[in-house]
Formats: sequence, structure tokens, C-alpha cells
Amino acid sequence: MATSLTLNTPLDMHLHLRDEAMLKLVAPLTAQTFSGALVMPNLVPPVTTFEALKAYEQRILDAASYEDFKPYMTLFFQQYDKAFLEKVKEHIIGIKLYPAGITTNSETGVSSIDSETLRPTLEAMSDLGIPLCVHGETNGFVMDREKEFMPIYESLAQNFPKLKIIMEHITTKDAVELLDKYENLYATITVQHLLITLDDVAGGMLQPHLFCKPIAKRYEDRDALVKVALNAHPKVMFGSDSAPHPKHKKEACGCAAGVFTAPIALQILAGLFETHGKLDNLQAFISDNALNIYGITPPKKEITLVKEPFLVPENYSGEGEMVVPMYAGQTLSWSLA
Amino acid sequence: MATSLTLNTPLDMHLHLRDEAMLKLVAPLTAQTFSGALVMPNLVPPVTTFEALKAYEQRILDAASYEDFKPYMTLFFQQYDKAFLEKVKEHIIGIKLYPAGITTNSETGVSSIDSETLRPTLEAMSDLGIPLCVHGETNGFVMDREKEFMPIYESLAQNFPKLKIIMEHITTKDAVELLDKYENLYATITVQHLLITLDDVAGGMLQPHLFCKPIAKRYEDRDALVKVALNAHPKVMFGSDSAPHPKHKKEACGCAAGVFTAPIALQILAGLFETHGKLDNLQAFISDNALNIYGITPPKKEITLVKEPFLVPENYSGEGEMVVPMYAGQTLSWSLA
Repeated sequence: MATSLTLNTPLDMHLHLRDEAMLKLVAPLTAQTFSGALVMPNLVPPVTTFEALKAYEQRILDAASYEDFKPYMTLFFQQYDKAFLEKVKEHIIGIKLYPAGITTNSETGVSSIDSETLRPTLEAMSDLGIPLCVHGETNGFVMDREKEFMPIYESLAQNFPKLKIIMEHITTKDAVELLDKYENLYATITVQHLLITLDDVAGGMLQPHLFCKPIAKRYEDRDALVKVALNAHPKVMFGSDSAPHPKHKKEACGCAAGVFTAPIALQILAGLFETHGKLDNLQAFISDNALNIYGITPPKKEITLVKEPFLVPENYSGEGEMVVPMYAGQTLSWSLA
Repeated sequence: MATSLTLNTPLDMHLHLRDEAMLKLVAPLTAQTFSGALVMPNLVPPVTTFEALKAYEQRILDAASYEDFKPYMTLFFQQYDKAFLEKVKEHIIGIKLYPAGITTNSETGVSSIDSETLRPTLEAMSDLGIPLCVHGETNGFVMDREKEFMPIYESLAQNFPKLKIIMEHITTKDAVELLDKYENLYATITVQHLLITLDDVAGGMLQPHLFCKPIAKRYEDRDALVKVALNAHPKVMFGSDSAPHPKHKKEACGCAAGVFTAPIALQILAGLFETHGKLDNLQAFISDNALNIYGITPPKKEITLVKEPFLVPENYSGEGEMVVPMYAGQTLSWSLA
């Protein structure tokens, strides 16, 4: 039985760091254990200019306080011309497309995802080798939103066969099935969607700290996600979608969507992979697959986990902000060494 | 266009009044506009003895403060012998069956709903003409719990053909379809399940004040409920399932299930029935059907509603308790005269 585990250059390929005091609180919590993270651009206003991109990158570096951490920056999708994309290419890892209004700070997203309308930008991205990261939900019934988005993924994959398309934070067996159908489709999966279903969110008491978008689905969906993640499917990467919202906003009426997992994701994943007898596959899920898919060379970092109880803090606070992690107050079976 | 509407002897055939300070706060809010209400027995401990039943009835009468209001009392289902049921028969309107642990204060409910196991009690109830009120959910996936319960309703309806069985607070088209299949099946429907779906609870921000059990389902389910309620299906009665939980418990992490609608249900229903051009059918849904199904003669009461804006209070408070109603702070189109 494994009692310790060393992970090389762990990567979080879908992360929300927000800005200002919240950024200062949460950036070190990721930088402590991850070599790099793909940082989402849905600030207010969203990151759409070279200047905003570089300024946000600097604020992240200033906040992170670990030298061996690299933020991989993204732009918020809109129609960009090729000259601009050529200029920013070396400074971004991808461009994130949000359907308008689908989640936190996505109001200025794309109102109609039509391959022809988006062709100039997507062709330029394809030519320049810039990946497209997609929040794949329609505005339909909450349990159907991701499934209904599958034809849009198919259309994008068919129309832009050389464009790398990342289906972000997938939650359904439908998305899993699409992975092997198109060469240019990839996916990130969060830690919570490997563990919970709608039953955990709303089957007993209502649990705002497990409420996120896309919402957790059915058992058969979770099983399909677990299967590809734990078997180290080469097109699947870890992306926490860790989303810090202030405690008072998560526990109020009308709570925002997002689960905060950044400082506990590795510990949870070690336990999950061990339970399934797949501990050897965690390195691929947490790093190797992303290195291959994105062709990046993050700072080297070795993180050792040990099989010792870890009491998840009730909250993380500082700079006037307080966030509650998933499993607050519960004990995990793996700890950071 | 109707500008006023008079309802005779409005009845709420599924109501939670709780006890102590909460009872004192909410009982008058129902008694003000309803002639009678079927009161649920899931106190802690549940109402299972003649003494507890009569004492609770007296506490309700003391709290209600309206002479023209009658609480229709229920017992919490367990195995009862026929002699006991003969003694209490004139003091109850029905017996409420909860699957164990399915909702608030149901821990001592029935762990396995098997017609043979329950036969002695159900046959006695059938012989004595005591209706069986059922919370019809399995402990399966939250969106499937009611649908999965349908075979249990069918088994009960077939095995006890003279027993009146009320499918409480139905939320699915599956339950609606069962209504016409068995002569001895009836149903109550809440106001919220005629209006909301899971999208309203968890499709945007998370809305604890719309979280209840059974949870609101899909659009096609809501449409099926609307169809039978608004067309005055004779086997369908209004039962609010109005469930007061203290504000601080509804807006906290791990919020309890229940929507508080008692003081606003008539106003909402008037607006809904009017919108569908079915205002003439509200009398059947709110009273006449229940009179026929249960064979009761409640105190006479005339309630007049007028088409004037009504600002729903942010909360109702008193006796140290505070509850937040559905649509708090929003304006309805109908008011009490």
C-alpha cells in the first residue's frame, strides 16, 4: 500500500484567480503546489487587450509569492484580427469562449456560437496554433445544458480540424463520448465532478459550497468522468475550475456558482486515485497529458503527498476576504508532506 | 377582465405548522385566509398517540386566533391496531406515511413500503374509511425519486382498492398520469410546483427559498401539473406544503427543504389561474375538490381577492422567529381585499 507519492510539475489547466484582495488570498494557495495554472480571463471587464493581459499577469506574479509558479494567461473570446493574435500569441496559452451570461462574469460572451460568424477569428487561431477553451453549455434546462452543447462542439471540431478545442470542466457522459470522436477535442475535468452528483448538491440539505456551473449531474455521468480521468485518457487534463467566492456570498440567498478546491485538490485526487487502485495514473492526469496537449514547459516542481490525515480548514482568509473550501472541516486521507 | 374574485371556504390540504414559537407565528397566517388545513404530523417526536394529537390540535387552535379555522389533524404512519384507529377516527382526517429519512423530521418513517408488511394497518384504515396521505419518494437520485415511487403507489392502489390514497405534493408528469389509472388515487399540488422548475432553484444563482422536497423538476413535469390543476381535475387538491424554516437556517450552508407560501398562496394562484384564463376553476382546486374527496364540512369563510398590486413582505416575524416567503420583495398582481 502506497504511503507516499511524488508528483512532478502539477498543473491546474482551468483556474479562477479573480483580482485584488481575492487574488492575493488565493494565488499563493495554488502556487504552493502547482507548477502552473491556466488562468481564466472572466474579470470585470474581461481580459481582451494585450495591456490588460500583461497587467493581470503581473498582478498574479506579484500575488503568487512562489518563483516556481507560472500563470498561463488566456484572453476572453471576441472577434480578434490576425495581426493582434500574432502579437499576443507568445503571451497566451489559449482563448476562452463563454456563451453570453452562462456563468460568473460572462455577460459579454458570445451570444450565438456559429462557425461561420466566428470563422475569421477561429481560422486565425487555428493557423497560429492558439487553442480554443470553451465553456460548453447552452441556456437550456440546467441538467441538459452541456448535452445540448454537443452539436456545437461537433460543428467547431469539424469546421476547424486543426484547431485544438478544449471542452472545459466536462460533467456528462455525452462529452466523454465526444472525446474519441474528434481528434482535435480535448477536455478538462474538475475534482468535484469526479466525486459528486446533483444528490450531493440538492439531494439532502442544499449545499451551496458544492454548487457550480456546470452543475453536477447523474451517477452515470460521474462514472464516465471517473473512467477517463483515472485511466489516464491522454486527452483529459485536470482543471480545477476552483472559483473563490467570498463566504458571505456563497452562504446567502442567491449564492454564486463555484467550488473552491485549489489548496486541497491534490490531496483529494490522491485519495480518489488510490481508492480505485490507479495511483500510478495521477501523474498523467495532473501534468503529463497537459504537457503533451499544450506543448508547454512549466517550472519544475516536485510535490510529495503522504498518507496521513488532513483536516481541511473551515476557511482560508486574508486581505479581508474569506473563502470556504470543498470538504471544509472534513478529514482527507492524504496530506502534503 | 376580472378585477375581483371571491373564494368560498379555501382549504390547504397539506400544511406544516411546526410547534411552539414557529406555530404561533405561522398558524394565524393560514387561519386568516383558509377555512381549514390538513396539518402534517412530522413534529419531533412525531404525532403518534391520541394524547399527542389532541394536545397538538389544541396548541394549533390557541395559536390560530381565528374562530373560523379548523385544523384537520393527521397521525404519523406506523403500525396501528384497529381498536386504536376506531378510537381516533373521528379526530383525524388521515394518516401520513413518510419513507424513513426522506424529508424534514421523517427519521422514524417507514423503512420499507411493502403492502404485505403494512397490510394490518392499511386494511383497518380502509375498513374505517381513513385516507392514507403519502410522501411518495424513494431514496434514489433526486430527480428520479418521485418517478421511482410510482410502482409503490400502484401496488398500494391495487392491494387496497377501497383505501383513499393521496399522492402528496406531486411534481412529475408520471404522477399526473397515474391519477386516472386508479380510482382510489388522488393528489395534492403546491403553488410552487405549478410555477418553478429546477432552473429556478439552481439554474442561475442558487435559491434556497425555492428549495423543497420533492425538488422542482422539468418543464414537461410542470406543464402536466398546471394542466390538471388549472382544468379543475376533480382528483386534484391544493396543498401548499408550506413549510416554515427560520430565515437563518434557510440561508445557511446546508439549508433545509421547504418553501413558505401560506400567506401568499391565494394571491399567487389567482394570478396564475387568471393568466391561463381559468379563474373560474380556482374554486374547485382550492376547495370543492377537497370537500368531495375528504367529505368534510369546514367553517364557512369567504375570501375576496382584488386585482391590485401586492408587495410580498421580505419576511414574516414574531415570537422570536423569522420566515422568508416565496417571492419575498416581489410584487404580485392580486391582493386580499
